[in-house]
Amino acid sequence: MTTTDTTTSGKREQAVTDEVVASFAGTKDDRLREVLESLTRHLHAFARDVRLTTEEWEAGIGFLTRVGHITDDRRQEFILLSDVLGLSMQVVGINAPADPRATESTVFGPFFVDDAPEVPLGGDIANGATGTPCWVTGTVTDTDGVPVAGARIDVWEADDDGLYDVQRDGDETAGRGWLRSGPDGGYRFWSVRPSPYPIPYDGPVGDLLTATGRGPMRPAHLHFKVEAPGHRTLVTHIFVAGDPYLDSDAVFGVKDSLVVDVAEHPPGTAPDGRALDIPWTGVHFDIVLEKAS
Amino acid sequence: MTTTDTTTSGKREQAVTDEVVASFAGTKDDRLREVLESLTRHLHAFARDVRLTTEEWEAGIGFLTRVGHITDDRRQEFILLSDVLGLSMQVVGINAPADPRATESTVFGPFFVDDAPEVPLGGDIANGATGTPCWVTGTVTDTDGVPVAGARIDVWEADDDGLYDVQRDGDETAGRGWLRSGPDGGYRFWSVRPSPYPIPYDGPVGDLLTATGRGPMRPAHLHFKVEAPGHRTLVTHIFVAGDPYLDSDAVFGVKDSLVVDVAEHPPGTAPDGRALDIPWTGVHFDIVLEKAS
Repeated sequence: MTTTDTTTSGKREQAVTDEVVASFAGTKDDRLREVLESLTRHLHAFARDVRLTTEEWEAGIGFLTRVGHITDDRRQEFILLSDVLGLSMQVVGINAPADPRATESTVFGPFFVDDAPEVPLGGDIANGATGTPCWVTGTVTDTDGVPVAGARIDVWEADDDGLYDVQRDGDETAGRGWLRSGPDGGYRFWSVRPSPYPIPYDGPVGDLLTATGRGPMRPAHLHFKVEAPGHRTLVTHIFVAGDPYLDSDAVFGVKDSLVVDVAEHPPGTAPDGRALDIPWTGVHFDIVLEKAS
Repeated sequence: MTTTDTTTSGKREQAVTDEVVASFAGTKDDRLREVLESLTRHLHAFARDVRLTTEEWEAGIGFLTRVGHITDDRRQEFILLSDVLGLSMQVVGINAPADPRATESTVFGPFFVDDAPEVPLGGDIANGATGTPCWVTGTVTDTDGVPVAGARIDVWEADDDGLYDVQRDGDETAGRGWLRSGPDGGYRFWSVRPSPYPIPYDGPVGDLLTATGRGPMRPAHLHFKVEAPGHRTLVTHIFVAGDPYLDSDAVFGVKDSLVVDVAEHPPGTAPDGRALDIPWTGVHFDIVLEKAS
């Protein structure tokens, strides 16, 4: 932890920080000033605490440059970096619902896309994503148990090769879509059973994991983003009970309340009447939205 | 400043930080582990101190993405960002020479290039860079006053439009070069009188300056990087006495010991015999290198 350094060099270094903080005095937006002043203090304190060398600073510039250059419309390495440094989950925690009845949130991740296709209630988001079919059902309610009709539910996931559609060549959408909860708050859709997968590790974030002896694996999960007027937007996953990576998620995203059982079914007729000649699975996940403050 | 937060949410947030710090336990390189643990603690503490919102986190990701995408072989926006946040000068201070007799260092900046042309002692680095000719002389010695012969002296500067060569179209090198100090440690070269200029402000760093009411100007300066076996490499500038921006350098780089007088001369013959039919200038700057530890 940083303590006040009263040596000559300590005072000189603090003076640099004070000068930079003072330079933000003319910021018209009070919140922006607050954020930048704190960022400056913490960045400088970090450099001083570790006595950052010039070569290490250069290495940091080079690392961030690589992160920037590998980032494009389909790959967001800065989010990945935030995720593996746990900053994303720290922000999730800071912005956690105040009401303990609300569904917990977790990391947004780098694989959401804005223009996913709409599917009807009971539709199939797989669209070619490979894996065991999975019938996902649940309800959307508020914290008093009142159904939330018409909530927009975005879902996205990797296929059983562990890849999201945006990680494959071509522009085909697969394993993602959005639908609206019904009048009773209920929702249901077909998807594929989530699989564990490695986060992209062929870039600088992967190099960081390798250098620190950390694994790239994430436990199997299905992403949800749920929006409804008058309610706080929920960003979360469901995780699969029994997954071998629940205790070592590369991005620290697992919460006990988000781990659900996946029921295994033999070939046959699913609850919506779909006839399957292969085994299929089912999960149920009730979503509770906090009211907007 | 961060204090220990003993509330339930405070403990929960600290637990996230502790989990991430623990994830680095397997890092083989002790120094890398130390740096990453401290970076994690400070990043998380920053987010907690300001109660960073999800939207602000997203804005930060978007900002860094823009910084990454505008950075290329000729533009280094991450260095610029480090410079305007004063992180660069903090690192300069942390790595300052221990011996007060050594020349002070300042920011490296984003405009150095590796493959600048060599010029002979007394040669001209301008190569088309416009501005009043400037005869630069000095000596390179160690802290005991012993001449350092054969030191490699890289110099680079903006022209009187305030632009470095790499900011112009084309691959022409101008206003940069390197030479070696002579047997007596002396050096001399022609250049142009440095001019104040704005750091590139058409990108995200410029937007940051605008949003915070800060100006983009740097006082006129000439960059030096001086390397000699057995000595610590010096990265510094000389600044021009009387410059209107000495007290408001956008990157906090000015140090009193680096401000030098620029002598103005009428048209005539310069000390090296060069005949000038326009006014010219001269500066003298003695460089003192610290021994390598």
